[in-house]
Amino acid sequence: MSNANLPILSIVGGTGDLGSGLARSWSSAGYSVILGSRSIERAQDAVSLLKSEGFANVSGDTNAAAAAKSDIVVVAVPFSNYEASLAEIKDPAKGKIVVTAVVPLVPPKVSVVQLPSAGSAALIAQSLLDPSSRVVGAFHNVGSQKLHAGGKADCDVLVFSDDADARNQVITLADAVSNRGVDGGVLANSTAAEALTSVLIAINRKYKVKGAGISISGLT
Amino acid sequence: MSNANLPILSIVGGTGDLGSGLARSWSSAGYSVILGSRSIERAQDAVSLLKSEGFANVSGDTNAAAAAKSDIVVVAVPFSNYEASLAEIKDPAKGKIVVTAVVPLVPPKVSVVQLPSAGSAALIAQSLLDPSSRVVGAFHNVGSQKLHAGGKADCDVLVFSDDADARNQVITLADAVSNRGVDGGVLANSTAAEALTSVLIAINRKYKVKGAGISISGLT
Repeated sequence: MSNANLPILSIVGGTGDLGSGLARSWSSAGYSVILGSRSIERAQDAVSLLKSEGFANVSGDTNAAAAAKSDIVVVAVPFSNYEASLAEIKDPAKGKIVVTAVVPLVPPKVSVVQLPSAGSAALIAQSLLDPSSRVVGAFHNVGSQKLHAGGKADCDVLVFSDDADARNQVITLADAVSNRGVDGGVLANSTAAEALTSVLIAINRKYKVKGAGISISGLT
Repeated sequence: MSNANLPILSIVGGTGDLGSGLARSWSSAGYSVILGSRSIERAQDAVSLLKSEGFANVSGDTNAAAAAKSDIVVVAVPFSNYEASLAEIKDPAKGKIVVTAVVPLVPPKVSVVQLPSAGSAALIAQSLLDPSSRVVGAFHNVGSQKLHAGGKADCDVLVFSDDADARNQVITLADAVSNRGVDGGVLANSTAAEALTSVLIAINRKYKVKGAGISISGLT
């Protein structure tokens, strides 16, 4: 059952690996989740799969319609589709929290940090979305394997925003899919987590593991 | 007793907080450590303090002379002194491993990521040092409190270099002062750890702790 006290979530790029993994974990935690896609058919196919696996409170729509129906918009698209996706949700995301989980990977060298000239994907969202949208960076370093089983990722999730209330709301969302959300400060700090994704890809390759993540030590 | 099989280490900026902390831990682990400073008197004062506390195999010299006498040069100066320090060691560090622990913090907003136009302090070292120097980025996220007691920091140390042998030698040095060194890939990836330092400063402030660090999860 969905919990009517929880915000309704949309996931732009909800049919992708990270997006569909987050959808499973948030569904398991009682959130209503709307999977967005450029193609409504693909969104509905992804929803049918999730329902067949027992995940409840999931629906599908276009990215723009999913954003319009939700309280919090989560963007989980490949970097190559990022600016087009932000344009699709610019109007429906006005006044809403927009969480970007997008990492500026530049294929083929995805294990090498190659930050965009704007500094980070988070700062690109802030520059392209309406000023009334409250941009948050999070979920950059979440391995999706455990999410796909409907469980929590074995890592901490760093959460960045210039809006303290938005940051706290997303820390709660992070608590539902990982060991815990951790307040990482202002939006500009998202650079660190975005860059870390390439480091974790390098670590996965070097140590022959699948889901290296980060954990913050020294917190009680 | 120092171990003659271990490389001799110099620390440029060895009288600073991180540098003198690393000196204590490496001394405890049996390394010979030469503390470098712009002022030989300050280096010798710092050595006298360490000796009075029981740390052995430590000596002091100017930054250039310390680099000349060592096998591996560790740079641990404030970002404001970084380029001048690199100029001091350029000649004596030819052909040697040079480890930069320097973080590009921009006061007063040290809890905000503000990367240099070159991308990272590590890439600045690579551009200013002689091409025969093998540049490694490491020790960016090490809280110095535990080091000052001669113990190990409760965190992992990410180690970055384009030179695999240099990376492995510095991973061994990291194992001596932290939970473990972790191979983070190429030198360009140092950006992630350098940026993370501002995030950890933000976390220390937000959660009222002193030594937030990072640990890599998912490694066996």
